[in-house]
Amino acid sequence: MTDKKERLKENAITPNIEPPDGSKAIRPEPSGLFANNPVDLGILSELEGISILEAGQFSFEQVVELCKLAAILEKIEIWPYHPLDGKIAVTAFFEASTRTRTSFESAILRLDGKVISIADGRTTGQAKGESLADIGEMFNAYADVVIMRHTETEAPEQMLENLRIPLINAGNGTGEHPTQALADWFALLKWRPSLIDSEPVQAKLNLGILGTPGSMRAVKSFLLMALLFRSHIRKVTVISEMADPFGPDVTEQLRQADIDYEVSNDVREHLPDLDVIYMNSIAFLGDSYRSMDSRFKLNSDSPIKESAVILHPLARLDELDTSLDKTRHNLYFSQAHGAVFVRQALLMSVLGRLHTLPDTFDT
Amino acid sequence: MTDKKERLKENAITPNIEPPDGSKAIRPEPSGLFANNPVDLGILSELEGISILEAGQFSFEQVVELCKLAAILEKIEIWPYHPLDGKIAVTAFFEASTRTRTSFESAILRLDGKVISIADGRTTGQAKGESLADIGEMFNAYADVVIMRHTETEAPEQMLENLRIPLINAGNGTGEHPTQALADWFALLKWRPSLIDSEPVQAKLNLGILGTPGSMRAVKSFLLMALLFRSHIRKVTVISEMADPFGPDVTEQLRQADIDYEVSNDVREHLPDLDVIYMNSIAFLGDSYRSMDSRFKLNSDSPIKESAVILHPLARLDELDTSLDKTRHNLYFSQAHGAVFVRQALLMSVLGRLHTLPDTFDT
Amino acid sequence: MTDKKERLKENAITPNIEPPDGSKAIRPEPSGLFANNPVDLGILSELEGISILEAGQFSFEQVVELCKLAAILEKIEIWPYHPLDGKIAVTAFFEASTRTRTSFESAILRLDGKVISIADGRTTGQAKGESLADIGEMFNAYADVVIMRHTETEAPEQMLENLRIPLINAGNGTGEHPTQALADWFALLKWRPSLIDSEPVQAKLNLGILGTPGSMRAVKSFLLMALLFRSHIRKVTVISEMADPFGPDVTEQLRQADIDYEVSNDVREHLPDLDVIYMNSIAFLGDSYRSMDSRFKLNSDSPIKESAVILHPLARLDELDTSLDKTRHNLYFSQAHGAVFVRQALLMSVLGRLHTLPDTFDT
Repeated sequence: MTDKKERLKENAITPNIEPPDGSKAIRPEPSGLFANNPVDLGILSELEGISILEAGQFSFEQVVELCKLAAILEKIEIWPYHPLDGKIAVTAFFEASTRTRTSFESAILRLDGKVISIADGRTTGQAKGESLADIGEMFNAYADVVIMRHTETEAPEQMLENLRIPLINAGNGTGEHPTQALADWFALLKWRPSLIDSEPVQAKLNLGILGTPGSMRAVKSFLLMALLFRSHIRKVTVISEMADPFGPDVTEQLRQADIDYEVSNDVREHLPDLDVIYMNSIAFLGDSYRSMDSRFKLNSDSPIKESAVILHPLARLDELDTSLDKTRHNLYFSQAHGAVFVRQALLMSVLGRLHTLPDTFDT
Repeated sequence: MTDKKERLKENAITPNIEPPDGSKAIRPEPSGLFANNPVDLGILSELEGISILEAGQFSFEQVVELCKLAAILEKIEIWPYHPLDGKIAVTAFFEASTRTRTSFESAILRLDGKVISIADGRTTGQAKGESLADIGEMFNAYADVVIMRHTETEAPEQMLENLRIPLINAGNGTGEHPTQALADWFALLKWRPSLIDSEPVQAKLNLGILGTPGSMRAVKSFLLMALLFRSHIRKVTVISEMADPFGPDVTEQLRQADIDYEVSNDVREHLPDLDVIYMNSIAFLGDSYRSMDSRFKLNSDSPIKESAVILHPLARLDELDTSLDKTRHNLYFSQAHGAVFVRQALLMSVLGRLHTLPDTFDT
Repeated sequence: MTDKKERLKENAITPNIEPPDGSKAIRPEPSGLFANNPVDLGILSELEGISILEAGQFSFEQVVELCKLAAILEKIEIWPYHPLDGKIAVTAFFEASTRTRTSFESAILRLDGKVISIADGRTTGQAKGESLADIGEMFNAYADVVIMRHTETEAPEQMLENLRIPLINAGNGTGEHPTQALADWFALLKWRPSLIDSEPVQAKLNLGILGTPGSMRAVKSFLLMALLFRSHIRKVTVISEMADPFGPDVTEQLRQADIDYEVSNDVREHLPDLDVIYMNSIAFLGDSYRSMDSRFKLNSDSPIKESAVILHPLARLDELDTSLDKTRHNLYFSQAHGAVFVRQALLMSVLGRLHTLPDTFDT
């Protein structure tokens, strides 16, 4: 029986996703972001009381300081400081998403905040026709912040009609998903800390978007936040069978930021040039994608640059093969892991609880 | 980008439901209820360990002291006192109701109690035939109080067969909804604090019930609690197309309390006489109501007395037009807001945690 | 109105399941397990960081010490010690079970841990095809322990592929339900504390399993844990219409443990010999059982030995008549009640929080 116990223990505590080549790429050290580089709480306090609706509302400095604070939160045991003591969040998921909902709930609970969870919009009056404005009025009495996902793009605007507490948009229809973009860039900043410099010290990056149908809002927020890092980016390549998947607005903004932009359906030609490959949860879309060309799927035999990293907001089906999990290309596990901490940093800022941090943390 | 941030900030923190005429009617000050009027904790302690099943079980004094305590809880930051520390509530919603469930959960969490949430009775053994008596036996081990909503009127009685912890009825079939009645009267007491005097110092009130089909239990509990304020009430008018919507029992109790009672289907005739108009969530009932006469709907052009206030347990559809939201008639937002605090006062009393209040609160 | 209040109060606080014959059998005193018999925390600390997958992974000493700690937790107010402060559990119920889920959540909340609740697997990516390995990777970032129920027997193994925090199996397909077995044996140890002696001081027990179709996993884990108490058990009788409901593996293990084993469909012949009758939640299986022979149902007229006790993992339908609830045979309410405490003992051990206990508790 000892053997069995040993096996159980090993299963339980041994990380088994070390890359076989010994690289640290998939678990970049967060301390690179804040060592000798104190967090500027003044910049973060600009977010107090603010609703978070879209990626473009953040300044470069805000994103950088949020990521630096998230990196600290990833390193320390935060719960003894109870930063969100007495604060209540409603997670209102009118569009079900266990992954995003539990990511937020974990972030809040770790900070000793409390959660009122609406996991399934079908149990709400909204399903019967109640307006989001009325639901927002109700939430004023119940909570200190609302975290909402909704199938309708207009949902945040409707809720804000009566809402007097901050709203965090966790995905609205074909709109945006700004906290996913924070998680994406937090992973990239941990991977390449020099991105926080205002001018590039390393070669500029080629970003690629692979598989554009699907939850466009995550990709859209990722690209809009990429504009803040324009000095570090040479080109954005969208590999898609659509002619112009993002439309003229995004294209124009990239152009104004001096970032090259191209759309192509030739995966083989472009993959080897990419430094960052952003994949999408496209396989969940249904049969139309399932029959899609296998060129749009990645595995460990795909012609990827040796130093390239892959992001994916997850969940995934077979568009992203598990053979990549144990390679240095896998930044998506770090991205998923870090999402909790960057949301913690955001919540502490929005809820005005930055002062709960011990002084020694920002030195 | 600064403009956008300013706009986001304004959306997030500026209340935009100030009545255009500058009236304070829709947000009456709670301090009118307890200023120079300490809460009598002795009366509230009578509720310790008691199940709350129906509006009629409360004494006048208990309702008044619950509302006074609720008014204090609405004014202070309660969480640093952790009044329900270590207490667990089960919210057992065999009939789904996100609004009532989250109202209770917010009340408990704000007091630092903990919640086990059963949002959807379809996941329980009850759906497969398990008895409520057995479920009650189970809850004895899990929690300190059960808050139950159920489609069956007999449900509380069945659960009490084995339950040895207090039960709070959050709506049982066609029965009652006593904590909604507490929320209703808390709103009225804040609006007219002289209701806590045993004899009227202002003109007696005409109460009107508009649109009786639907969730009769909320209206029924409201009327049964109205009996406690009999000296302040001249008449109850039910505007309905039914001949006798409440039956002889309620009618007889009103008569014995010397309150005039009439049923009429003539909205135009009676509306201008009413001081308090209680509307009902009738539009959720389905097609039969949707085709109902538009006379039973209220909007800002309805012939309402200038000083009249409107109550509505919410959620609403078009029976109560949003054009009334920014008028002085809107007491329903205050009513919804206050529900959290009156439930807090009740829970602190039932769970025996009144002593956690600092002495300075009841002076 | 005083009468009504008195009635409400009595309903709320008076236990009404005292056995009519005055016996204490149905609520055995937990203190029999630890009086003059300190808990050996060293043995319990062997469980730190361990996944709990099957009944057979426990040693006799671990089960005994878990039950002794559970008995202490049942006697004391544990919450002021906050043993799980800062710890987060995910309750991931891909197969819905309100009873088991709320039992775990109550255990965690009473210890001041926090819960992320997935009550309904249909809201997860898993429903859309996401792998359990990916979900496990996600949970690493969100929580300190995962409590999972799943319809598939292979589910725990799949989740452990990427999981680096302990997993507690709360029922996997036709596999096991090890914490139910702990609850079963905790009830038996409170009923007969001499079971913790390595050699029997009382007559050996005849165990009977009644009604084998259904959730076999609970019965299977019960029997596998029974092997640890082999010196106290004479015989296991399975009363079933199946020829060999458990298959050769279980049979062989019982034989090697010197426990007699027989299968029979003659209820009347065997019932009077049994000291412990383990019933199963078979009536939930559907029509096939509902038409089953009424011999397989128990009520207060069944020919049961006067000293025999009945266990049932609940929920039940009519296979176990409520006429037995108020008899000394009813150990199933104690079993359900104790499940919370033995799960607390397990969680404190697995999460490494045994040191939070005051010294005076283990004397």
